[in-house]
Amino acid sequence: MSNSSVQFASGEFVPLEMHKVRVVQKLNLLPVEERVKSIEGAGCNTFLLQNKDVFLDMLTDSGTNAMSDQQVAAMSVADDAYAGSASYEKLYNTIVDILGTEYFLPVHQGRAAEHIISQAFVTKDGVVPMNFHFTTTKAHIEYAGGSIDELFTDEALKIKSNHPFKGNMDIDKLKAKIATVGKENVPYVRMEAGTNLIGGQPFSIANMREVREVCDTNDLLIVLDISLIAENIYFIKTREEEFKDADIKTIIRAMCDLADVIYFSGRKVSCTRGGGIATKSKEHYLRMRDMVPLFEGFLTYGGMSVREIEAMAVGLQEILDMNMISQSPQFIKYLVDDLDAAGIPVVTPAGGLGAHLDAKQFLPHVPQLEYSAGALAVALYIISGIRGMERGTISMDRDADGNDVASEVELLRLAMPRRVFTLSQVKYVADRVKWLYKNRDLVGGLEFYDEPKVLRFFVGRLKPNS
Amino acid sequence: MSNSSVQFASGEFVPLEMHKVRVVQKLNLLPVEERVKSIEGAGCNTFLLQNKDVFLDMLTDSGTNAMSDQQVAAMSVADDAYAGSASYEKLYNTIVDILGTEYFLPVHQGRAAEHIISQAFVTKDGVVPMNFHFTTTKAHIEYAGGSIDELFTDEALKIKSNHPFKGNMDIDKLKAKIATVGKENVPYVRMEAGTNLIGGQPFSIANMREVREVCDTNDLLIVLDISLIAENIYFIKTREEEFKDADIKTIIRAMCDLADVIYFSGRKVSCTRGGGIATKSKEHYLRMRDMVPLFEGFLTYGGMSVREIEAMAVGLQEILDMNMISQSPQFIKYLVDDLDAAGIPVVTPAGGLGAHLDAKQFLPHVPQLEYSAGALAVALYIISGIRGMERGTISMDRDADGNDVASEVELLRLAMPRRVFTLSQVKYVADRVKWLYKNRDLVGGLEFYDEPKVLRFFVGRLKPNS
Amino acid sequence: MSNSSVQFASGEFVPLEMHKVRVVQKLNLLPVEERVKSIEGAGCNTFLLQNKDVFLDMLTDSGTNAMSDQQVAAMSVADDAYAGSASYEKLYNTIVDILGTEYFLPVHQGRAAEHIISQAFVTKDGVVPMNFHFTTTKAHIEYAGGSIDELFTDEALKIKSNHPFKGNMDIDKLKAKIATVGKENVPYVRMEAGTNLIGGQPFSIANMREVREVCDTNDLLIVLDISLIAENIYFIKTREEEFKDADIKTIIRAMCDLADVIYFSGRKVSCTRGGGIATKSKEHYLRMRDMVPLFEGFLTYGGMSVREIEAMAVGLQEILDMNMISQSPQFIKYLVDDLDAAGIPVVTPAGGLGAHLDAKQFLPHVPQLEYSAGALAVALYIISGIRGMERGTISMDRDADGNDVASEVELLRLAMPRRVFTLSQVKYVADRVKWLYKNRDLVGGLEFYDEPKVLRFFVGRLKPNS
Amino acid sequence: MSNSSVQFASGEFVPLEMHKVRVVQKLNLLPVEERVKSIEGAGCNTFLLQNKDVFLDMLTDSGTNAMSDQQVAAMSVADDAYAGSASYEKLYNTIVDILGTEYFLPVHQGRAAEHIISQAFVTKDGVVPMNFHFTTTKAHIEYAGGSIDELFTDEALKIKSNHPFKGNMDIDKLKAKIATVGKENVPYVRMEAGTNLIGGQPFSIANMREVREVCDTNDLLIVLDISLIAENIYFIKTREEEFKDADIKTIIRAMCDLADVIYFSGRKVSCTRGGGIATKSKEHYLRMRDMVPLFEGFLTYGGMSVREIEAMAVGLQEILDMNMISQSPQFIKYLVDDLDAAGIPVVTPAGGLGAHLDAKQFLPHVPQLEYSAGALAVALYIISGIRGMERGTISMDRDADGNDVASEVELLRLAMPRRVFTLSQVKYVADRVKWLYKNRDLVGGLEFYDEPKVLRFFVGRLKPNS
Repeated sequence: MSNSSVQFASGEFVPLEMHKVRVVQKLNLLPVEERVKSIEGAGCNTFLLQNKDVFLDMLTDSGTNAMSDQQVAAMSVADDAYAGSASYEKLYNTIVDILGTEYFLPVHQGRAAEHIISQAFVTKDGVVPMNFHFTTTKAHIEYAGGSIDELFTDEALKIKSNHPFKGNMDIDKLKAKIATVGKENVPYVRMEAGTNLIGGQPFSIANMREVREVCDTNDLLIVLDISLIAENIYFIKTREEEFKDADIKTIIRAMCDLADVIYFSGRKVSCTRGGGIATKSKEHYLRMRDMVPLFEGFLTYGGMSVREIEAMAVGLQEILDMNMISQSPQFIKYLVDDLDAAGIPVVTPAGGLGAHLDAKQFLPHVPQLEYSAGALAVALYIISGIRGMERGTISMDRDADGNDVASEVELLRLAMPRRVFTLSQVKYVADRVKWLYKNRDLVGGLEFYDEPKVLRFFVGRLKPNS
Repeated sequence: MSNSSVQFASGEFVPLEMHKVRVVQKLNLLPVEERVKSIEGAGCNTFLLQNKDVFLDMLTDSGTNAMSDQQVAAMSVADDAYAGSASYEKLYNTIVDILGTEYFLPVHQGRAAEHIISQAFVTKDGVVPMNFHFTTTKAHIEYAGGSIDELFTDEALKIKSNHPFKGNMDIDKLKAKIATVGKENVPYVRMEAGTNLIGGQPFSIANMREVREVCDTNDLLIVLDISLIAENIYFIKTREEEFKDADIKTIIRAMCDLADVIYFSGRKVSCTRGGGIATKSKEHYLRMRDMVPLFEGFLTYGGMSVREIEAMAVGLQEILDMNMISQSPQFIKYLVDDLDAAGIPVVTPAGGLGAHLDAKQFLPHVPQLEYSAGALAVALYIISGIRGMERGTISMDRDADGNDVASEVELLRLAMPRRVFTLSQVKYVADRVKWLYKNRDLVGGLEFYDEPKVLRFFVGRLKPNS
Repeated sequence: MSNSSVQFASGEFVPLEMHKVRVVQKLNLLPVEERVKSIEGAGCNTFLLQNKDVFLDMLTDSGTNAMSDQQVAAMSVADDAYAGSASYEKLYNTIVDILGTEYFLPVHQGRAAEHIISQAFVTKDGVVPMNFHFTTTKAHIEYAGGSIDELFTDEALKIKSNHPFKGNMDIDKLKAKIATVGKENVPYVRMEAGTNLIGGQPFSIANMREVREVCDTNDLLIVLDISLIAENIYFIKTREEEFKDADIKTIIRAMCDLADVIYFSGRKVSCTRGGGIATKSKEHYLRMRDMVPLFEGFLTYGGMSVREIEAMAVGLQEILDMNMISQSPQFIKYLVDDLDAAGIPVVTPAGGLGAHLDAKQFLPHVPQLEYSAGALAVALYIISGIRGMERGTISMDRDADGNDVASEVELLRLAMPRRVFTLSQVKYVADRVKWLYKNRDLVGGLEFYDEPKVLRFFVGRLKPNS
Repeated sequence: MSNSSVQFASGEFVPLEMHKVRVVQKLNLLPVEERVKSIEGAGCNTFLLQNKDVFLDMLTDSGTNAMSDQQVAAMSVADDAYAGSASYEKLYNTIVDILGTEYFLPVHQGRAAEHIISQAFVTKDGVVPMNFHFTTTKAHIEYAGGSIDELFTDEALKIKSNHPFKGNMDIDKLKAKIATVGKENVPYVRMEAGTNLIGGQPFSIANMREVREVCDTNDLLIVLDISLIAENIYFIKTREEEFKDADIKTIIRAMCDLADVIYFSGRKVSCTRGGGIATKSKEHYLRMRDMVPLFEGFLTYGGMSVREIEAMAVGLQEILDMNMISQSPQFIKYLVDDLDAAGIPVVTPAGGLGAHLDAKQFLPHVPQLEYSAGALAVALYIISGIRGMERGTISMDRDADGNDVASEVELLRLAMPRRVFTLSQVKYVADRVKWLYKNRDLVGGLEFYDEPKVLRFFVGRLKPNS
């Protein structure tokens, strides 16, 4: 428990919002028979569910966070100008203040930043080492002609672990990889804060310092994805001895000073829309700059709404508040610890993104090639109205021969949007997961009946195979 | 547990929001030494605390509720017209639809309705029987030259009770009272839904039918305060057999059809500002009408903002949703039951307004004339940042000889604004109250050092008497 | 033309908004045959028109002004607390800063301030001298047992004039009145900035100094209504030599320092809702204070919405900007000068509230007792969709014998809400008025067919008398 | 004058807003000496001006329009879901209703649509004929390996003209071009409604029918850019006999039914942000679909904010209202006709985007290679605070030898954002332009002192050359 959180006299751990609710939005909990129809209509794919049929939407934390009243207010005073908007000035100054970078390029979303960075830096057949991939990151590096290599530690993918920094890069693997492919074939090394696809797991500043050292030795750039920096910082402050008394900005700067190019999706870090690329290097800036007007929008809005720009400036300032950034990790911890204590196979320790159920252990009777994580997502929706996201075999592509490939991990992710759900709702999630675990024999496998060649994950349709 | 609430498989009772959070506002939890300074600066009177120094503001549920997104949106399309505003039309039509009354007078707040009703109906030296008084009601009836008489049942003021309808009027007392004072000296009988000052306790439709019968026999009017109707309806649906399968509007109509004049504060019932008076009688309407332009505003806005009028129309429609009106009573029940189970002296059963701690039992070593409920309010603020409201001796006036009068009840009220606080925060409240109960010997009495002749409750200042 | 306004090289006078439009609301211009039906349905009373049937609503400037984006934003961060709201602190500090008064009482609207001031200060049979009455002011003074006496100058009611300060009080009449009734029977002298019912006409600081002197000699209080202070200040700055280079706050202070009790309606001065009473005197403050919780709301919100309180604080700061307060007077001047140049009988010089057509000259063939100003209002609505307000005989009450009394002035007021209408719309108004003047023979008189005893002005219904 | 506009009895043409102002934003008019400093600081490039230093921002109509209150309200009820958002459903249904297309792909902005369409359809060395290019269109077609060919009529670029449809494609040139390059080398033909770079000039339905015929003959697709469809439709209704009595949706459908792929920037057509691609063809849809998640965002938000999606759905419905779409063309007509009558060289007839001053005639003493349109932009800013956009030689690239190329047209564009500026402000613009024309000898040429290889238009810096 962090030093920011309020201790209960009872000794019980209760995650506590340090804010009050100002505006709410009604949720629908359909009767179970209607939920069955909805998920059938969605081809057993939670991406295809209509949100009005969902009770608790835990598909993702991207673009689904609650705003602060200060953010809402800022949207009302946005300066609507194509060029030279005062709103952009506010955002720019915030970036400089928090990240310590002189140059900034606004873009409409995280993947747009990845598009531009990849086009600017990735060389044909270049290899980009990283602590872990993110779907759009991989896609853009490959689109630019390169490939990725994930150099995570042995601890990273273990379901049960108590490692404080599962997002660390394996330094030995990094050295070996550079030696193997040649540093000239490494456009840059990528670090992702709050590593998304292994569950919002953090890396330590100590680890990133080692990465920096290796990169300096080899004259390599570091590109840092800070979309989940708030949660990574929270874990550094609560787990890395050196920083336990440091203020948030100091830790952010410690991390960002180690990178050459920094980018983010505002859908996560600032509870808004949009994104951006920041750097201290004029050279890097100029290498990317002209793509912003081509793909995004003029340099002072980058395809974002000025309203979102205003809210982003406020939202970025808010991550300097330990009370704000503690909220989500503490609620996740509550859920994960509760499930873990009940014997549910859930990834530990709790990260900064949500709870991740291990479908292989949860549904041992369902083969991976019958999409056990997908089946778990369907079952949980039916019995609860909760929407999670499959992170397993369905998310993989078939191999060159058209065969399905079992994923290394077979997870159901239950993401926790920031400030949206309450303890009551988290307890509801735990209650339903526990019920489902007890009744897991009811759950069978799935098979595709409409499987597109690409993006089957997003738009494919399945049905029960029995 | 109501039939609207979601059952947990575990059997645990967990109040569950059927909405998600969209906008939040930061709270401050000052260090304890600053809280001591704040409450000293406020003269040990929670009314004088600055809200920025308060963590959880449980002073009242009036004007402090969270709005729905639909209400916020409606505010943006308000029709700003002095006369004939389309926003007023929406509100009027909503009133007709829900309450079934043809005539409506908008006013700026509940007490403004009481002012107008009292001026219109209360006769010099007239006596208004009621199930219980409310502060402003009593003040306006007396300002109009009348007096009040509270005809509650013997159960009403018991701390421990399991009576489902502590807000009922005692029918025998009513008959006796009318006989005694003469029906010509009874301007009207007043019923208050969700009786505020006995803790948001409901009356039953059966009881109100009896009141109606007595009034019909004696040719008396019934004035009904529906500021807390949502919670009263919730209890009728969950406790009064006849209505368990009725929809909300049916129950509202069953209640309102028994009244002659109906009024409300929008600060409670519709989570907005403003208020109104509704009646089916043209004669009653005309008797009150001309006071609206004099004291409030023109007849189509009544001193309200058109924005609030729009939000009120939406808010009134929202009370037709059992999920909406269950929220507050269920969270209150959770808190009250938890405190009760821990042996804390708290008023039972849980009502629709908040938790009420009995200071006499909580602080048996503090005499009532040393303001034990006030002392409890101060102590709770200091150890938690929670602001409650004294409902005891400080709230009373001195007698004609200037002597302090011990109140019949000596309570600390912890009000529960609708949709504002979460289970985490409710658990925090319970945790701190339990700690305080264990350490109650630390708490001493208070004495005034600045005691105004009137309204000492609002603006008087006290200090520890030891 | 004021020194704040932008000069056109062409020499043409064009009132120019120093703001841009951010949010608009659709207007309806019904076909003329539907307008005929609408006004018939409204009993030929513009107060009874539905606003959806109105194209340009020039009934009043009260509560119908456009907000600034800063005001809208402020509403989103309001601090919803019954007691000690941070929003109230902002408003209080703004009041102290701008008006220079230490004590403040918030109320829900201007007339509520008048209610409290009258109850606190007006003595039975006391006479309140004033530069001119306002409807609700008169009503509340009479409700409190007193009466009013209007001591305007001979210039005040002339239709054609070029007097810069038609709102001045006649000092000799004031001295005479005090001598006649005795100073002990004068509860206070009332000055109204931007005198509403004579057309938003200002008084000068020089005049108010003389009033002060008379009051000091006689030990009398001055109560100052500043609902239209912004426009009065504009005229002082542009017409009173001493203040031509003074900043706005200096002029406001020069005026307010001469008063003992100051009050306002936020519906005008701050483009919000609500109102307030300010004073430097603790004694006066305490005399009024306890009525605020009784009639309005607790002392830190006074029956206002906290959203409106936030917007009021911003709105009051905005009147310190000459560009802001010039807007309305300059648009009014454009309209009045244009009509005057076309020979239309319109009150001159242009004031701060709107254009006032003299129905006696406009419709010389319609007797005043056939309600010529009312008839003009009806005719203008029919031919244009514009809604004005009758300020003539209909607004008067019948005398003790039940006879109609011809009003001293017989005007149609076309009010100009602040920042709402544009030059195009003002030109449309002028175009339609001119057409009507050419075709004035078409207009006949009116007669009541439903005339209530009180408030016939608001709710009475009329029809053509031929 | 359109049949939707209100006729003035005086016969004067006055563009009239059929809406009222609800929210305004303060503008700054700096003293002239500060404007000189600002434009120097901006390198004599209006793109580099800070908007806070601009009085009237007429740089562009893109993303700078005023919203309706209905749009603002819709933003408050947005359904924040990554997949299956109810907000997207509203937008999708609106698209189907208005455009009549079954398939829709949301994107973050117009240029993003161009990116995807170009990647999907443009072949290596393919030639895309079009009525006129737009900057980002050309860039994306070239980025995809193709080139453009502008087949406008001889009338299109004439400064003085009274041709009702200067945006028409020259059908003979189209046939000839297809014959020359071979239809297999024509990926598609592009039509742009309200042709932007020739001044918001429309094409006729008759013309597009001919284009369709040619395309059908040659089996070619038509891609239609409808970012400025509202204004094009306005001109069709007021200028093309066949459609004078048609309702707006009928005309939109007549146009859209002739196209295969339709796209738009919401920054113009719906007064929001975002954009989209619509088609009736499943095949075309699938060809583009997978790029949306890669470059933009998931298929149900496409990189847009859900708030903007809600506002876009409302904004698209609003273009069905002739009163709404008349507003901007009528204000532009007022400005253009006024300038034209004063002998100012301005492009006629007035189009749907703004006024375009011909710098060659305005500043005959400044050679084009001294950037006369740029010089005019600088001069106008200095004397008025108005920001226009150069559309001339600075906007061109140097040729292969590094020589500057004089542009065919040398214009200063003064764009008219929808619903933002008023008649007063338009008159101010005309007044200042006339003054400048009289004093045009004061204006000299410019030269670059910081000229980047690409995008000199956006980020290059110039200074006076004398």
